[in-house]
Amino acid sequence: MELLIDRIAERVGHDRVLTGDAVRERATSLWNSAPNPAAAILLPRSTAEVSEMLWLCHEARQTVITQGGLTGVVAGADPLGTDVALSMEKMNRIVEVDPVDAVAVVEAGAVLQTVQETVEDQGLYFPLDLGARGSCTIGGNVATNAGGVNVFRYGMMRSLVLGLEAVLADGTVISSMNRMLKNNAGYDLKQLFIGTEGTLGVVTRVVVRLFRKSSSRQDALVAMDSFDAVVDFLALLQTGLGGNLSAFEIMWGDYYRAVTGDDGHRSPLARDYPYYVVVEAEGGESATDDERFEAVLGDALQKELIVDAIIAQSAREAGDIWKVREDFEAVLEPAPCYLYDVSLPIRHMEEYVDDVRRRMLGLWPDAALYTLGHVADGNLHFFLRPNLPGDLHGPADRCVYEPLARYQGSVSAEHGIGLEKRNWLSQCRSDAEIELMRRMKASLDPQNLLNPGRVVA
Amino acid sequence: MELLIDRIAERVGHDRVLTGDAVRERATSLWNSAPNPAAAILLPRSTAEVSEMLWLCHEARQTVITQGGLTGVVAGADPLGTDVALSMEKMNRIVEVDPVDAVAVVEAGAVLQTVQETVEDQGLYFPLDLGARGSCTIGGNVATNAGGVNVFRYGMMRSLVLGLEAVLADGTVISSMNRMLKNNAGYDLKQLFIGTEGTLGVVTRVVVRLFRKSSSRQDALVAMDSFDAVVDFLALLQTGLGGNLSAFEIMWGDYYRAVTGDDGHRSPLARDYPYYVVVEAEGGESATDDERFEAVLGDALQKELIVDAIIAQSAREAGDIWKVREDFEAVLEPAPCYLYDVSLPIRHMEEYVDDVRRRMLGLWPDAALYTLGHVADGNLHFFLRPNLPGDLHGPADRCVYEPLARYQGSVSAEHGIGLEKRNWLSQCRSDAEIELMRRMKASLDPQNLLNPGRVVA
Repeated sequence: MELLIDRIAERVGHDRVLTGDAVRERATSLWNSAPNPAAAILLPRSTAEVSEMLWLCHEARQTVITQGGLTGVVAGADPLGTDVALSMEKMNRIVEVDPVDAVAVVEAGAVLQTVQETVEDQGLYFPLDLGARGSCTIGGNVATNAGGVNVFRYGMMRSLVLGLEAVLADGTVISSMNRMLKNNAGYDLKQLFIGTEGTLGVVTRVVVRLFRKSSSRQDALVAMDSFDAVVDFLALLQTGLGGNLSAFEIMWGDYYRAVTGDDGHRSPLARDYPYYVVVEAEGGESATDDERFEAVLGDALQKELIVDAIIAQSAREAGDIWKVREDFEAVLEPAPCYLYDVSLPIRHMEEYVDDVRRRMLGLWPDAALYTLGHVADGNLHFFLRPNLPGDLHGPADRCVYEPLARYQGSVSAEHGIGLEKRNWLSQCRSDAEIELMRRMKASLDPQNLLNPGRVVA
Repeated sequence: MELLIDRIAERVGHDRVLTGDAVRERATSLWNSAPNPAAAILLPRSTAEVSEMLWLCHEARQTVITQGGLTGVVAGADPLGTDVALSMEKMNRIVEVDPVDAVAVVEAGAVLQTVQETVEDQGLYFPLDLGARGSCTIGGNVATNAGGVNVFRYGMMRSLVLGLEAVLADGTVISSMNRMLKNNAGYDLKQLFIGTEGTLGVVTRVVVRLFRKSSSRQDALVAMDSFDAVVDFLALLQTGLGGNLSAFEIMWGDYYRAVTGDDGHRSPLARDYPYYVVVEAEGGESATDDERFEAVLGDALQKELIVDAIIAQSAREAGDIWKVREDFEAVLEPAPCYLYDVSLPIRHMEEYVDDVRRRMLGLWPDAALYTLGHVADGNLHFFLRPNLPGDLHGPADRCVYEPLARYQGSVSAEHGIGLEKRNWLSQCRSDAEIELMRRMKASLDPQNLLNPGRVVA
């Protein structure tokens, strides 16, 4: 191992390699403050350097864990002491923003928020958005096929990647830097590297799709009496707002009450409804879009789909509404609190959430379940708090995952599998599917060197 | 071979196998009226039957060509006499339409237009649309990652497939019938079968994503003086119409004049402009959407981006505008006329088309080039007519493809590679990329039995 690290330092540069204390003084990830245990951290500055590093590791049969912003929640980028970490942090340039073709070319280590802000300065819009925007990287977004709040309008990261460059386990560079929305010239190789959590290659550069910045935006917080009303309200918005609806975020009453408690966010609506939804639309012209938005909400009130609503009158008021949805510190204590990310057909959501709650209360009568999600894309998040000390992760997992199979649900909507959910993968994927994943892994990384043990063991 | 066919007939059913004249009386494809030369045509009625047929062929090392609607233009489904054809025509059921989750489950042989119309009856909308809608099948749409006119708003077929079921060369059934927009539980295996032209597996069933039917629609035909104006007009529409813009179809003046000639379509605008564009928007409410559409076109006129425009006042007028774009019989005679489908960055389009025309006229001074395309997604189509008899496909290909590499263009935007474009694949994909495609093929179909020779040889 030491020989290999010396060799990399000599061939690629001593400033490209961290060892010893320089590694240990870094945390393992955002969620794991233990000192980073990796044998070394490699800091490439170009695709050629990534290629050389991976080739040298390949020759030495050395495992490599690729690291981006370290915000992932499934331990996908946590190295062991026997691993080398490959951090993309020095490859963080925004190489090009092209307003005519509406694309940007960025290095994998670029931070999502930096990309969002850079293109916005040119009147453009990159719609991927999630809580970790300030530290997660584009490469990590690709590797995990990141989701977030705008998916049903703009798609997941997979839909926003036009081209990419990746390095295979043996150092081979696959450059597929396509810039067009349409390109059917042969297999679409980029799909191999999107959502495969770094197990098939290391993404180094990405061409992302951009949109024109919207001229108008409307936000509202809405309350409902039943889940059926939530579903009908969504359909009404999709029809009535045409292509402008951009977010539809549901909060179950338990969650809403927890984050708007005495020390929490101000509640602009009464706090005793069973369901709350944050609605956002983005369109082309403020005056008429505002009017339409109000008209559709008025229609929903009249049809008794919604029982109360407040429309933000300023960007600040919109920000306050979104804080209720995004800033969930209040539900985390007392520890432990377990975070989940599942998806399932909308028609089964209410029944499923009730089922999870029932199982949980059967185990821990004082436990709390806080539910929120994106609904329109099938995605729910839970914060499950047993309100008992100790490691209760295993039984909590069973409460959430065991009833999911019945509804053809998925144990991971957007967070991925990593190490944490590996044992639950077979809950929602067949043996034949998992065997095919293994076959792909064996074909692209026969020595099992890249992020070994993630996704498929 | 005969033994194998007998064995399939015995095990799966004699009515599942056509041989001899029953094969010969069918055309090879829509574009090739020669009698179908396949040794047999298999007609499975279920995924289990596909699996059994492929397993038997696999045991016998028999090559299999999968057939859908036979509308593809790159000879991707044309069998040889040594091949067995597997036609999906009997698996054409629409199994389920779910308005709550906005998905439909369909068998691979279902015809696109049937799917469009069936879901429309329930207030839903399946946005994939292309000229061959009346005969092309969903399975073929998946295998070729079909594009069409709504791509920049709704994406290609890849974005509209939530889940699918496919059978591998050895008969293994991979069932990934996911129904959610978000599902990151392991590798997204469906990507292996989308756009890989049947070379990695046979698609049997598909879950497609649906949208709510729009309440309003606006169509216009617009004329411009320069390509720069086309680009700026597109940006103006994208900003001004918010999410409602759904089509932006360009026609070069040569094409427009050819199809609106003496025996052609009525021309609602003067016929001497260099560029024409069909614009379509779909939204939530007629009155305000109509008003906005007119306002944005008015703005474009005032800014001198467009020089003339007509807005359709009825569905019939909209239909007349679209006929100019879609009904191109007039450019095909006298034969030969070669059809192309390329994509490239928008910023290079004008220069590239001029380059192709110059090369063509250098070879054939009386030749004609008719250009149209989707622009917003980088896709151009050519009809290239040498106006000389004989097989001039080779030199015509060189006129179109040779200048493309300079612009990072693609030799296939939406038609695929099939047999016809195989020799041009290396024009836009690197050796490393093609080698990786071969590696995928070898991993999933090691005996090279499924659609052999397509895409990668």
